[in-house]
Amino acid sequence: MTTKKYTVITGASSGIGKESARAFARRNKNLLLIARREEQLLQLKQAIQAENPQIDVQLYPTDLSVIQSIEPLFEKLSVYELETWINNAGFGMYGELATNDIEMIESMLHLNIEALTLLSTLFVKKYRNTSGTQLINVSSAGGYTIVPTAIIYCATKFFVSAFTEGLADELKTTGAKMQAKVLAPAATKTEFGKVANQAESYDYDQAFGTYHTSQEMAQFLLQLYDSQQTVGYINRDSFTFELSQGRLPSAAGSTNNQKLK
Amino acid sequence: MTTKKYTVITGASSGIGKESARAFARRNKNLLLIARREEQLLQLKQAIQAENPQIDVQLYPTDLSVIQSIEPLFEKLSVYELETWINNAGFGMYGELATNDIEMIESMLHLNIEALTLLSTLFVKKYRNTSGTQLINVSSAGGYTIVPTAIIYCATKFFVSAFTEGLADELKTTGAKMQAKVLAPAATKTEFGKVANQAESYDYDQAFGTYHTSQEMAQFLLQLYDSQQTVGYINRDSFTFELSQGRLPSAAGSTNNQKLK
Repeated sequence: MTTKKYTVITGASSGIGKESARAFARRNKNLLLIARREEQLLQLKQAIQAENPQIDVQLYPTDLSVIQSIEPLFEKLSVYELETWINNAGFGMYGELATNDIEMIESMLHLNIEALTLLSTLFVKKYRNTSGTQLINVSSAGGYTIVPTAIIYCATKFFVSAFTEGLADELKTTGAKMQAKVLAPAATKTEFGKVANQAESYDYDQAFGTYHTSQEMAQFLLQLYDSQQTVGYINRDSFTFELSQGRLPSAAGSTNNQKLK
Repeated sequence: MTTKKYTVITGASSGIGKESARAFARRNKNLLLIARREEQLLQLKQAIQAENPQIDVQLYPTDLSVIQSIEPLFEKLSVYELETWINNAGFGMYGELATNDIEMIESMLHLNIEALTLLSTLFVKKYRNTSGTQLINVSSAGGYTIVPTAIIYCATKFFVSAFTEGLADELKTTGAKMQAKVLAPAATKTEFGKVANQAESYDYDQAFGTYHTSQEMAQFLLQLYDSQQTVGYINRDSFTFELSQGRLPSAAGSTNNQKLK
């Protein structure tokens, strides 16, 4: 008897997380879905099981911006054999820093950085030497290029890009069996625009000349998953999806001393 | 009567923070010094006042990794007129992610990212339209280049670099009077090596071919302070101090749509 393996997706109630859940389900991957909104998770589970009745879908409604919930959540998941962990949960906020709400800033730091880092670390500590395991962290085009009026969001995504590219290299260098990867979407039609603008609705056709749908982005995520590359990103000029071994400067393999502050 | 103006320095009990306090004192700047270790702050205050009896030095012993202490601290400082805020407090940690202690990771995220962001934001909200004000955030060479075995530290410093460069641009674009700047030291002989290696002592001569002293770095900080540039950093090849308008890719001034996730 083989143990069932699971793919974990955070922020699975909508957008890229939701479509990624559907895409992994079509690959016969059992799912552990995490998001705040239980009702949306239940609807997604029904939709997935109607299409893919053979897979197991378990729901873990959790607000990951509440850091105290992270370790107990990971502990609850210890009854499952995990294969892939996708840290997709995150949100943005537009506006000048001087107008940004302090509590929103703190929530963003907790969700985009702290939850992602703790979950990544716990997953790496447990599964780094297990063949076939992957950690995929969702960054952004804004995690490689600073975008005006979204500086804290971009800074959180620079963190995600640097952390995950550094980890990918470390796992290779140390001969670990896990792969770490970064997905860096550009404009994607999700609830992102509505939340980041604190608006009731958001018109992607009006806001952007070009954007991808969540379904398209989930397919790009699968391309990254299937590849041996570290970064999957949207080229800002051509707006096509590209794969890369790493986009940030790294001292790995450098003959220089590694010089820090 | 002119109101006394103050320079705030976090992490002032040792290293670059301590030497920067001395350097600003020699410029006749009154000081508000923040660090955990009250005894070291008291000694520093005595040393500074022996040399510069004309300036006022006030001490605020605080553990900035305890986020609940940030807003009350800033509130306490509201009785002073602030001129410059230097977010220097921070620490690093070497070792593979799988061996990193979860509590140390959380402390590093709180201090290097969350405290710096909240203090920057509070300072910007209050003083952005006051002439002569400056916010200087201390990043690292590791905030522009990923260094193996220090990936979370580097990721926190990528955050600092992106946040502060983005803010510098935003303040210019919106016509604010405050300047925001990044100092990016490379190897500097401080307590950094001891803390990051969790060792009793650390030999910079043995660890690095080249390093700067904290006194040298404090002089570089003054060069950055006196300049109209945004980033002051150590060139990793020549190991000289250089100034730049910005080192990270930015969509500011781009004619492209600003495309995010």
